[in-house]
Amino acid sequence: MKIEYTLLHKEKNTSARLGQIKTNYGTYETPMFMPVGTKATVKSLAPEELKDAHSGIILANTYHLWLRPGEDIVNKCGGLHNFMNYDRPILTDSGGFQVFSLVKNKEKDITEEGVHFKSHIDGSNLFLTPEKSIEIQNKLDSDIAMSFDECPPASASYDYLKNSVERTLRWAKRGLSVHNNPHQALFGIVQGGAYEDLRKFSAIETVKLNFDGYSVGGVANDGESKEDMYKAIEYSTPYLPEDKVRYLMGVGEPIDIIEGVERGIDIFDCVLPTRIARHGQAFTKNGKINFHNAKYKEDISPIEDNCGCYTCQNYSKAYIRHLINTNEMLGGRLLSIHNIYFLIKLTEDIRESIKKDSFLEFKKDFIDNYTLSLKEKNNLS
Amino acid sequence: MKIEYTLLHKEKNTSARLGQIKTNYGTYETPMFMPVGTKATVKSLAPEELKDAHSGIILANTYHLWLRPGEDIVNKCGGLHNFMNYDRPILTDSGGFQVFSLVKNKEKDITEEGVHFKSHIDGSNLFLTPEKSIEIQNKLDSDIAMSFDECPPASASYDYLKNSVERTLRWAKRGLSVHNNPHQALFGIVQGGAYEDLRKFSAIETVKLNFDGYSVGGVANDGESKEDMYKAIEYSTPYLPEDKVRYLMGVGEPIDIIEGVERGIDIFDCVLPTRIARHGQAFTKNGKINFHNAKYKEDISPIEDNCGCYTCQNYSKAYIRHLINTNEMLGGRLLSIHNIYFLIKLTEDIRESIKKDSFLEFKKDFIDNYTLSLKEKNNLS
Repeated sequence: MKIEYTLLHKEKNTSARLGQIKTNYGTYETPMFMPVGTKATVKSLAPEELKDAHSGIILANTYHLWLRPGEDIVNKCGGLHNFMNYDRPILTDSGGFQVFSLVKNKEKDITEEGVHFKSHIDGSNLFLTPEKSIEIQNKLDSDIAMSFDECPPASASYDYLKNSVERTLRWAKRGLSVHNNPHQALFGIVQGGAYEDLRKFSAIETVKLNFDGYSVGGVANDGESKEDMYKAIEYSTPYLPEDKVRYLMGVGEPIDIIEGVERGIDIFDCVLPTRIARHGQAFTKNGKINFHNAKYKEDISPIEDNCGCYTCQNYSKAYIRHLINTNEMLGGRLLSIHNIYFLIKLTEDIRESIKKDSFLEFKKDFIDNYTLSLKEKNNLS
Repeated sequence: MKIEYTLLHKEKNTSARLGQIKTNYGTYETPMFMPVGTKATVKSLAPEELKDAHSGIILANTYHLWLRPGEDIVNKCGGLHNFMNYDRPILTDSGGFQVFSLVKNKEKDITEEGVHFKSHIDGSNLFLTPEKSIEIQNKLDSDIAMSFDECPPASASYDYLKNSVERTLRWAKRGLSVHNNPHQALFGIVQGGAYEDLRKFSAIETVKLNFDGYSVGGVANDGESKEDMYKAIEYSTPYLPEDKVRYLMGVGEPIDIIEGVERGIDIFDCVLPTRIARHGQAFTKNGKINFHNAKYKEDISPIEDNCGCYTCQNYSKAYIRHLINTNEMLGGRLLSIHNIYFLIKLTEDIRESIKKDSFLEFKKDFIDNYTLSLKEKNNLS
């Protein structure tokens, strides 16, 4: 079996959807947030902690695993699930985003055949093609593989994006033609920046190739405005089939997740919860808080009073502040657990609101609370 | 209650002892290895992982907690157990070893009153006295506190050590006189380098003060020989009462633990298992192995086949090698779990051998295996 998506309910007032994805490693409901396990590990966490945070599916990065330890080693270790001891669904990206974002412009050459570039680790010459990306992902043996697409910068011109969308389509076909893992789904990626006609063209043509699911790509670039991100989604989702999963790549800000769901997105991924954790920050219903702030020194309450996560059930802000202040690894770990739980719980709450056709009320309440401290600050200044 | 030590069995052929320590946070058997939670966290691990590794008691550092977050904050958070969410026994050291080892000579001034020194964090002027050390430990509310002693360098002369032993005794009395925590035991520390007469004098005079337990200190200095360490123990333990715990400070090399037990030591602590873990090393029955070594790249076996630790039950050498090679935090965490389990299991095996009066056979077998790869290397070269 590859994956099976079932649309369970369409919210009455928006494009928000409640769905279910069945995989060989378990079934989960959507909308769902996916934690990112870049190098086959969600930074600092063990698999049990992801399960405790109700994680439905995680993401691993093809680019990083290709470079180290190499897909053949992962394959010899029984594929990604065995390699990293994670018996729930895993999605791998194509490696494209990393090549386009981690490698400096002067150190890469984008051709029709693929991308020549220098490794960000040792400077060695590498060549990633649509076929190679799929071949690596086949060996990694994830549950969902992604097509290799071109990820143009936020500043790209209309003409550049038009050519890029067409190339991404040709690359999608090449990837499909070599995909060879009967247990693995393959998703196509819609590109086209914030241009309605390009997104429409990209969506319609990609859907014609009949992938197992679809992603809205090119929305998590540096320098892109929120408005352009929301447009990119709005211009794409109407042309995607209702009976397939829709994935918004690289998005994890709580409000962006909500805006994505409203526009018909099912799954999201982002390094944000673990990255801000390592920098001492935690999500709360009233916005992010920063544990470098001395005001938490003697605060014996948990990060959030009603949070069900392991961290909030067991530790005070004062202890977390101490760990962050002294660079102790457990600090980033406890905050990662909380932040991942927070985003997954957000998608759980979203699902409840979709069931009740009250998504917009949920959205208003959440955003009012989440931006409260920001508003208070603005009023004070 | 403070602590209650019960001597359960004296091994027939050596000075090795099987004992039991009852505390307000549970009872455990000795010999026992104590993991070190320097800043109220055993680096990278959560309390549940320490319990899973059968940890009987852990150590936290008074010096570090005094500086950050400060003993008053820990006290407001309900003491160390509550602060770090650890409901098993905790021992705190006196802070002396850190002052003597972390602070450069020109930045400290040792007087009869105490030690004036500059903080290793921000250079501020600090003053630690025997009274202050006990006062801090009373507030930290550990199960076992340690006397503030002078820790002379391995290179100290006989005359220096003689004066130091006498000062340590005066400091021990001053600490005792202010100790004021009815739930907390207080241990005295025997000093005297590798000199038989000084150790004897120090032990006899310290025991006269009637502490709840005794430590053999000054054996984990940089540059000290193994021979001198073993002498220091041999010259001390005969003068310590049989009905009190004996603690060898800062020792965690497997063979040193065994040598210590043979000479009558009950508990040990060391940062070694977590420190070598962060450097990619694991203890095995055949000596230490290093995961920076490429030979583990495709090795799908666990660190040790018959090891019951979480790491060996769930992860391959290939995965650990990948985590260490890519600087992923989970690598140090998985190795820390294994290494702590290894040393605690070593003390469990030692206890079994004491029960059977077969300690010396156990010792021979263990050391033969542990030094095997070393011997093989020497034969090859």
